[in-house]
Amino acid sequence: MSQNTLDYIDEHLDRFIEELKEFLRIPSISAQPEHTPDTRRAAEYVAAEASRIGLENAAVMETDGYPVVYADWLHAEGKPTVLIYGHYDVQPAEPLELWTSPAFQPEIRGEDIYARGSIDDKGQVHLHLKAIEAMLQTQGTLPVNVKLIIEGEEEVGSPNLVPFVVANRQLLRCDAVMISDTTMYDYDMPSITYGLRGLAYLELHVTGSDRDLHSGMFGGAIANPINAIAALIAKMKDENGRITLPGFYDDVIDVTPDERAELARLPYDPQTYPNMLGITTTTGEAGYTDLERLWARPTLDVCGIWGGYQGDGAKTVLPAKAGAKISMRLVANQSPLKVADQLREFVQANLPEGVRAEVIDLHGGPPALTPTDSAPVKAALVALEKAFGVKPFLIRSGGSIPIVADFERELEAPVVMMGFGLPDQNAHAPDEKMNLKNYHRGIKSAAHFLEEFAQA
Amino acid sequence: MSQNTLDYIDEHLDRFIEELKEFLRIPSISAQPEHTPDTRRAAEYVAAEASRIGLENAAVMETDGYPVVYADWLHAEGKPTVLIYGHYDVQPAEPLELWTSPAFQPEIRGEDIYARGSIDDKGQVHLHLKAIEAMLQTQGTLPVNVKLIIEGEEEVGSPNLVPFVVANRQLLRCDAVMISDTTMYDYDMPSITYGLRGLAYLELHVTGSDRDLHSGMFGGAIANPINAIAALIAKMKDENGRITLPGFYDDVIDVTPDERAELARLPYDPQTYPNMLGITTTTGEAGYTDLERLWARPTLDVCGIWGGYQGDGAKTVLPAKAGAKISMRLVANQSPLKVADQLREFVQANLPEGVRAEVIDLHGGPPALTPTDSAPVKAALVALEKAFGVKPFLIRSGGSIPIVADFERELEAPVVMMGFGLPDQNAHAPDEKMNLKNYHRGIKSAAHFLEEFAQA
Repeated sequence: MSQNTLDYIDEHLDRFIEELKEFLRIPSISAQPEHTPDTRRAAEYVAAEASRIGLENAAVMETDGYPVVYADWLHAEGKPTVLIYGHYDVQPAEPLELWTSPAFQPEIRGEDIYARGSIDDKGQVHLHLKAIEAMLQTQGTLPVNVKLIIEGEEEVGSPNLVPFVVANRQLLRCDAVMISDTTMYDYDMPSITYGLRGLAYLELHVTGSDRDLHSGMFGGAIANPINAIAALIAKMKDENGRITLPGFYDDVIDVTPDERAELARLPYDPQTYPNMLGITTTTGEAGYTDLERLWARPTLDVCGIWGGYQGDGAKTVLPAKAGAKISMRLVANQSPLKVADQLREFVQANLPEGVRAEVIDLHGGPPALTPTDSAPVKAALVALEKAFGVKPFLIRSGGSIPIVADFERELEAPVVMMGFGLPDQNAHAPDEKMNLKNYHRGIKSAAHFLEEFAQA
Repeated sequence: MSQNTLDYIDEHLDRFIEELKEFLRIPSISAQPEHTPDTRRAAEYVAAEASRIGLENAAVMETDGYPVVYADWLHAEGKPTVLIYGHYDVQPAEPLELWTSPAFQPEIRGEDIYARGSIDDKGQVHLHLKAIEAMLQTQGTLPVNVKLIIEGEEEVGSPNLVPFVVANRQLLRCDAVMISDTTMYDYDMPSITYGLRGLAYLELHVTGSDRDLHSGMFGGAIANPINAIAALIAKMKDENGRITLPGFYDDVIDVTPDERAELARLPYDPQTYPNMLGITTTTGEAGYTDLERLWARPTLDVCGIWGGYQGDGAKTVLPAKAGAKISMRLVANQSPLKVADQLREFVQANLPEGVRAEVIDLHGGPPALTPTDSAPVKAALVALEKAFGVKPFLIRSGGSIPIVADFERELEAPVVMMGFGLPDQNAHAPDEKMNLKNYHRGIKSAAHFLEEFAQA
């Protein structure tokens, strides 16, 4: 990396932050119809900025919802192409009264800039733009080809992104997708997120008699759907916390010894969650550490349950039906559809006598696991080490970001999640903030990445 | 029984029915404050009628709610005393539009008289009054001593009855309590109900973290209270449908071979409940018939359950808490308090890791079981056989009538439940009715009972 570029980043940092503030002032809340003009204005802002810093073909491309901003720079002949993805829309700011300074009036306090969208995701989009500006300004060129797509519906589930990608597969062809929308493990611990869990979310309905019955007159000889659904749910896990659906673990890629060693490098205080959440202890599948349970192992959690009488006092009813919402977090290479079928079959095979059951598929998304020895991940690790001066960490996340698997599937390119957030930065909550030192190091990381990936 | 008395009953039947209509015209709905004057009027009616037929000391005795009507006839020196209990209040009549004829304008159609309170319980109070009238008119005396207490709050849970009984224990001393407020097994199958189930009703709360969590970020390492409550509930029964609380069956009086033979005499079509309720099959504790399961075996039914997200769609929440209402129907000699303790201990002993639990005692009532070889039950069986001309049946009920155990406890006297209702007579529903042939046979049964009990 030319020292000029790094110097440019240092010298222009204050201006960069002023420009970021301008971006943050736009209340581009995709969930709130009254902010439609603001949200579209944010798209225009990104497109204009992309042009200004030297990207080409900048376009606000319409979808059935908010537009996707596209821009590119494709003059690095023979070099790989990076697609940088991010989003210009933000979460609603409510409850407004809990913000120390107004959500759309960015304010710097200490090392942090406070504003809705600061870390999720405007700040992290902006640092890539500034890295590109710095390289083009100081070197007149980029070491790789770059394509930019910044969408405006991430906070409402990206309903139009996959159709956009499918419709523009040729335009978006690339060798790697770079996303900065995740967190580092901790401050001064730069991290690459290489795995996300997928999701299979189902609703289970159990039905007994065709009406609620008197528990005295009928109790004992008529099956109770609540007892039945409890028995079904209980049977879905064994005493070691393992899920009992036949075939459930067949496609699971278990953590390798190398990966376990890498995860064991991460500082983890077993009292952190108990202290934070008011619980006595963490718990889970036997034979795995908490981080492995959270990141690398599938789950089966009931997110909601209902049935019978929920009011005050003692109503002696033998209910007609019960229901539950069941979320299964999946890990590579589980398939949400296959797992849904496994649950459906398990329920029928284990159905208590005298009740019927139905399983409804509500939602699903595949897990993602980027090989840590892939060229873009290796380039990102070197980039982070150069920018932060410490060996970066390979981490996973227990949550699901469906677009990651979507990109991998539709573009057949590995996805690198190089995020600069921190766990306490209040994404989706009042007083959202971004650490400006990490913003600064993020710009350098983004620049280093382009250079490192050029050599892959 | 003197033939004169039986003839009197036959000859005066039409007048009895006209008098019953008068009683039924009083809308003595204890649950509806606008019917307070009507309800008190029904008490006055019963007291006046008791005097008119020759009972003595008739009194409308005040309580904290509606009064209890008392009357007696105590001239059968050296003979046992029967306390006849019933109630003059009735259920609300709503929904009014579903009645074929108005609820408080008694109408005879076919063999039945239709009116609110006809079977529950005015008609069954009235038949005892008419039996006493017939005996006093034709014989000038009664074969036993009789005490009458007719209350006005049965349909709202008899809140003042136990205090009344406790305060008047000496006045109410007796050798047997006669209640006609239950049903026969079927038409032409006169029945004595000798057993009722008790009830222990508890609420179970299971708590995990101190707030709802993201099921992706935390799922796998933080205990889920819904999964935990399901595991607890499932574990409360084994694969044979037996309840697993330690000590739960210790006090249960099992059905004897004689009792099984008696219950097996009852016609029971195993398709009746499936056809009636839209279920595939009845089910329950292994080794018992449906009637035994419904009448003579304890149950554990979850009457309500709740936790997490119950709305539409897929909210990926790892909930902070879950709750359930648990009803255990008890049989003699189980104690509601002891069983509640057993549940409390079971929950703590089987609590999954990472959650806390609390058990709240909501409601309880002891079971009742009258020895079938006790003098009043034997007298009632003979009386029914004489009145109906067929061998009567000994049955139990799966429901709970707390006052039965209350009488047994407070008055130390056996309770005979000689009811003349039928399962299809719409007690508590529109078009409530009483079969007039059974009313007629009921008067004779009541008279025969007094005579048979005199010889005990």
